[in-house]
Amino acid sequence: MTKKRVVIAGMGFGGLRAAKALAGSDVELIMVDRNNYHLFQPLLYQVATAGLEQEAIAYPLRGLTRRWQGASFLLAEINGIDLAEKCILTDAGPVAYDYLVVAAGSRTNFFGMESVALHAFDLKRLDQAEDLRNHILLMFEQASREPDPQRRSALLTFVIVGGGPTGVEFAGALRELIVYVLSQDHPTISSAETRIVLVEAADSLLTAMPDDLRRYAQRKLSSMGVEVLLESRVVGATAESVELYGGDVIASHTLFWSAGVSAAELAGYLEGVERGASGRIVVQPDLSIKGYPEVFVVGDMACYLADGTPLPMMAPVASQQGDYAARIIRAREQGGTIPPFRYLDKGSMATIGRSSAVAAAAGFKFRGYIAWVAWLLLHLYYLIGFRNRLVVMMNWTYAYWFQERQVRLITAKKRRAVSL
Amino acid sequence: MTKKRVVIAGMGFGGLRAAKALAGSDVELIMVDRNNYHLFQPLLYQVATAGLEQEAIAYPLRGLTRRWQGASFLLAEINGIDLAEKCILTDAGPVAYDYLVVAAGSRTNFFGMESVALHAFDLKRLDQAEDLRNHILLMFEQASREPDPQRRSALLTFVIVGGGPTGVEFAGALRELIVYVLSQDHPTISSAETRIVLVEAADSLLTAMPDDLRRYAQRKLSSMGVEVLLESRVVGATAESVELYGGDVIASHTLFWSAGVSAAELAGYLEGVERGASGRIVVQPDLSIKGYPEVFVVGDMACYLADGTPLPMMAPVASQQGDYAARIIRAREQGGTIPPFRYLDKGSMATIGRSSAVAAAAGFKFRGYIAWVAWLLLHLYYLIGFRNRLVVMMNWTYAYWFQERQVRLITAKKRRAVSL
Repeated sequence: MTKKRVVIAGMGFGGLRAAKALAGSDVELIMVDRNNYHLFQPLLYQVATAGLEQEAIAYPLRGLTRRWQGASFLLAEINGIDLAEKCILTDAGPVAYDYLVVAAGSRTNFFGMESVALHAFDLKRLDQAEDLRNHILLMFEQASREPDPQRRSALLTFVIVGGGPTGVEFAGALRELIVYVLSQDHPTISSAETRIVLVEAADSLLTAMPDDLRRYAQRKLSSMGVEVLLESRVVGATAESVELYGGDVIASHTLFWSAGVSAAELAGYLEGVERGASGRIVVQPDLSIKGYPEVFVVGDMACYLADGTPLPMMAPVASQQGDYAARIIRAREQGGTIPPFRYLDKGSMATIGRSSAVAAAAGFKFRGYIAWVAWLLLHLYYLIGFRNRLVVMMNWTYAYWFQERQVRLITAKKRRAVSL
Repeated sequence: MTKKRVVIAGMGFGGLRAAKALAGSDVELIMVDRNNYHLFQPLLYQVATAGLEQEAIAYPLRGLTRRWQGASFLLAEINGIDLAEKCILTDAGPVAYDYLVVAAGSRTNFFGMESVALHAFDLKRLDQAEDLRNHILLMFEQASREPDPQRRSALLTFVIVGGGPTGVEFAGALRELIVYVLSQDHPTISSAETRIVLVEAADSLLTAMPDDLRRYAQRKLSSMGVEVLLESRVVGATAESVELYGGDVIASHTLFWSAGVSAAELAGYLEGVERGASGRIVVQPDLSIKGYPEVFVVGDMACYLADGTPLPMMAPVASQQGDYAARIIRAREQGGTIPPFRYLDKGSMATIGRSSAVAAAAGFKFRGYIAWVAWLLLHLYYLIGFRNRLVVMMNWTYAYWFQERQVRLITAKKRRAVSL
């Protein structure tokens, strides 16, 4: 009897966890991704703010298949899924499957605003983080030699959209980059003449957090010098300006967008399958697609209703669902089954700055130094690879002691050179 | 009395050393470079062979100007030098000087062979190292799914031109990447079916080294599995082949060129100035240009005759000349002068692989383990920045213990996608 083949499409948190849980079991495992590495997305913002080298948050997938019996890796772009024929179509040819785990994650959602999509930075991929870092550093280089005060001020204004964890963490990290590093690097630029504006549509930041933690986060950011605009929305952008709902315009060369995601392109390849909000695939209680018990969707792509509400698009959901998909496949192969998927909410956290974070878990609330240390340790724990952990820890220690960020390199000047 | 202004054009080894020696003295110092970092070029080949992250060999120049009194940095592309008006022309406007140190280094010389220039990789810039790494890793990904044996073999064949230190070091590092890492990553590819061909026009490798070290290097490389072709030249290339003088063609998708350099473009902006071989600027015994005692040329760009022979284009020459330029400027400012420049040859070295290198210094010759350790220590010593030294040391230790290279990431697939 030949082994059943499990294909995992996408090696983010969901795919990785599914693969890990299936490795060494009695199946043939094929991991497919367009990149040859797993990316630790929660730390992308630290690459963008010159705190980490990009290589530290990526782990080569073949470093895993080497160790995992029965597992192999295919570097390929998936451009179709044939549910009837049970195969995925890739630029390296078709790959047949007995079980399929679809885990391609999400993409940034600009809600149809073309001018924003064109001019905003977002953080999904490694090269985007490098681009954004290059851009921020370049703004300071250009401002330092810009004689016109208005243009100079626009170069030194940074607009961040979205008050979720990514927006909050990026705002805090950018502020610290400016205060501790860039204003020291540029003796002619004072941090007081730089502006960071954090725009959020709701009436508070970090809406998934308890009330007092929300208020703490906002107070802390404000005290650091970040302008928080609540109940406000960005509706348009040019290379040099950001337009708010109501007509206000902020002169700024940098717009960072973290205000929404929708299911990755791959979701569109699953024809005739029910979709939920944000283009997510509606899944059964066992994470399979209706009518295709051999196809599971996990993570950001899956719309799983818990008490009538879709689970949030975040790493812990993806990991738990990836693990579940692996377990149900193993159970079925042994002729059994397991109970429906249940999400165990372990809480959420966001770091704001040096020695400052918020965390809510299991009914407990933490803030300040202790939450910050917990954030550091958890992120180190979830990073893949001993070497990466070492490099990240070293960078963090170095930054903490010396208030320095040595990865402030402009490695390319391809994107959006601003004419002076 | 206003301070005299010294402009340093180019922050490689020569410019950096000149700046360091001038910092804190009674001059205004402006460092100009097209990048915001100093690049440690001797380790570029380790970035290209997935041994180091690119950020580890770059140091932000503003990290230096922060500490150096009277020094400032200008990120700019230089597109002209007006010797009569004493100013350099940049894309950020003209910059006047009282003294100018021209230290823009060298560019790769393809000796007019357009097909080679078009298809070969070379290593001068950080992005080139990343490109080459991506390309090498991609060749293995493509070979692992290529059914045609001939095409597969071409994907797994790597041609290196130039048997100097760069070619030798790259060949050894690539071989070890393949043997220890990539052939483990790809269970379907054995290192025996990969080929590395090192092509050198002379009758030995490392022609600057003593005879027995040359032979050792060649023996060692051969024993590692590198094919060494002496008295041979590459005369043409396509995306999938390399043509040798005499008509032989090697089917290969990867051509690495380290067979020649010439002075950087900037040399062409010095009009009416005498040129030596490779477009280098002929300098006076004090490194100034004839008729312009306030303009010094140092490093690869300078053609300085010592006993009738131009000094080689290498880092130690550049460093010593940069230091000399700084010292003569300081002396002149104090109304004095110093004796002509003299190069102190501290020897040369090249690493071949794990525990194996050659070094010749002060009449002594070393090879094997001791030369390798000396090579490691010297390179760590000359790297700029405590953090970078730590990261590099950590990578080397990790690679030595675990025979692993974790930076094997394909970070972009822009360049030269090979159709399958």
